Amino acid sequence: MTALSAYLQVPAKSISVDSLWLVGVVSLASGFQLAGFARRVGEARKKYKVYPPRVDGDEGFVRCFRAQQNCLEFYPIFLVTTWLAAIFFHQLPAAVLAVFYILERESYFTSYSRDAEARRKPFYRTVYAIQGLALLAALGLFNVMVRQLCGRNLIQTIIDVITLPI
Amino acid sequence: MTALSAYLQVPAKSISVDSLWLVGVVSLASGFQLAGFARRVGEARKKYKVYPPRVDGDEGFVRCFRAQQNCLEFYPIFLVTTWLAAIFFHQLPAAVLAVFYILERESYFTSYSRDAEARRKPFYRTVYAIQGLALLAALGLFNVMVRQLCGRNLIQTIIDVITLPI
Amino acid sequence: MTALSAYLQVPAKSISVDSLWLVGVVSLASGFQLAGFARRVGEARKKYKVYPPRVDGDEGFVRCFRAQQNCLEFYPIFLVTTWLAAIFFHQLPAAVLAVFYILERESYFTSYSRDAEARRKPFYRTVYAIQGLALLAALGLFNVMVRQLCGRNLIQTIIDVITLPI
Repeated sequence: MTALSAYLQVPAKSISVDSLWLVGVVSLASGFQLAGFARRVGEARKKYKVYPPRVDGDEGFVRCFRAQQNCLEFYPIFLVTTWLAAIFFHQLPAAVLAVFYILERESYFTSYSRDAEARRKPFYRTVYAIQGLALLAALGLFNVMVRQLCGRNLIQTIIDVITLPI
Repeated sequence: MTALSAYLQVPAKSISVDSLWLVGVVSLASGFQLAGFARRVGEARKKYKVYPPRVDGDEGFVRCFRAQQNCLEFYPIFLVTTWLAAIFFHQLPAAVLAVFYILERESYFTSYSRDAEARRKPFYRTVYAIQGLALLAALGLFNVMVRQLCGRNLIQTIIDVITLPI
Repeated sequence: MTALSAYLQVPAKSISVDSLWLVGVVSLASGFQLAGFARRVGEARKKYKVYPPRVDGDEGFVRCFRAQQNCLEFYPIFLVTTWLAAIFFHQLPAAVLAVFYILERESYFTSYSRDAEARRKPFYRTVYAIQGLALLAALGLFNVMVRQLCGRNLIQTIIDVITLPI
């Protein structure tokens, strides 16, 4: 139970570099991914001869462009849930889910660029990842709220009760 | 004056979970709102039969889509000003203004989906919310800057002067 | 060597307001810039008589609109790399590069609004700024990672070795 207890540790009162570096690495990776998507849209512009400022033309380009736009639309939601989960819950599960999200986004972009229908499956998986991150964030925030309003650390209390007979 | 003094407290030197949980909750709520807008655009796609990757067609769909795009355009500005206000000033007024912003965005999306002209009033109110958040952030940052450059805590000094005769 | 050592200081274990205020100021400025771009697109709507929800029409408007969209696309990447560089490396070089990015974005928006070809040079310079920020972030994150996994502070070790003969 010590492992569980250590894992579900109460968020430290002050936010430290060492409790966030994992999601820092993942965020940097996600930034590189977005930069890569922007580059691939640029290549699609050349391939399908759709020059700025135009954004319509061959459907091959439009699919690629819309894939990028959808990634950009969800990026703030992804970032917010990842960092809230890391700050208020724990960075390890947040980083795992965020890596899953990034991999599925890669699959989404590649699939959508080929065929609009193929975008569905990886898209749903990115939604599951975000739902997981939101759940972690909500749990962590709920814990801080209870501690603030009732002076009790909920997660610590639950762990104490569970580990009582051991 | 103690209440005012406590309220306008100097930002703690280290950023803690307990001084940010309110804007954490609000940010999570705003993430859910954006996800809801994305879902409503998806429903408008079905209703008006505008299938990806297309983004033009019936004006009913285009209004709904542009409403979402405008919310997304302002989301980073909203997030940045909210968190700067919370970190460098205080999370309570930041959270209040952020909740106001979220409610007006809901009104904006619903109004714009019905009628392009009706988007104006709630839009202006979201701008006021962001201006308020930016003002709080600027005050807090200015205080840290003065403390760093002149070794004086401005807000504390003002409070001291005000409370002198009491 | 003391100056270098102080400059390349190990990121503090807890993240403090005083080690982030510079990028706070820069982020607030970048928020104002985006708001200004949104306003200029609004003015272009009036000038070229392109009323919401439409986003196509005279190429003068489309260029201005696409300039804004491109700024928005890169804004999350810019913010993430700036804050990672500030948190995990040091806020001073992060803020300098971020100011450079903001100035080049201003030049980009103005140039693109006039002529689609003129957008290239300032755009490439914003990419260099982001690459520099990503490099700083990667260095800082790598240092924390090494400290976490090997119990060694890499940057401190290097400084110690360099300053040995002095």
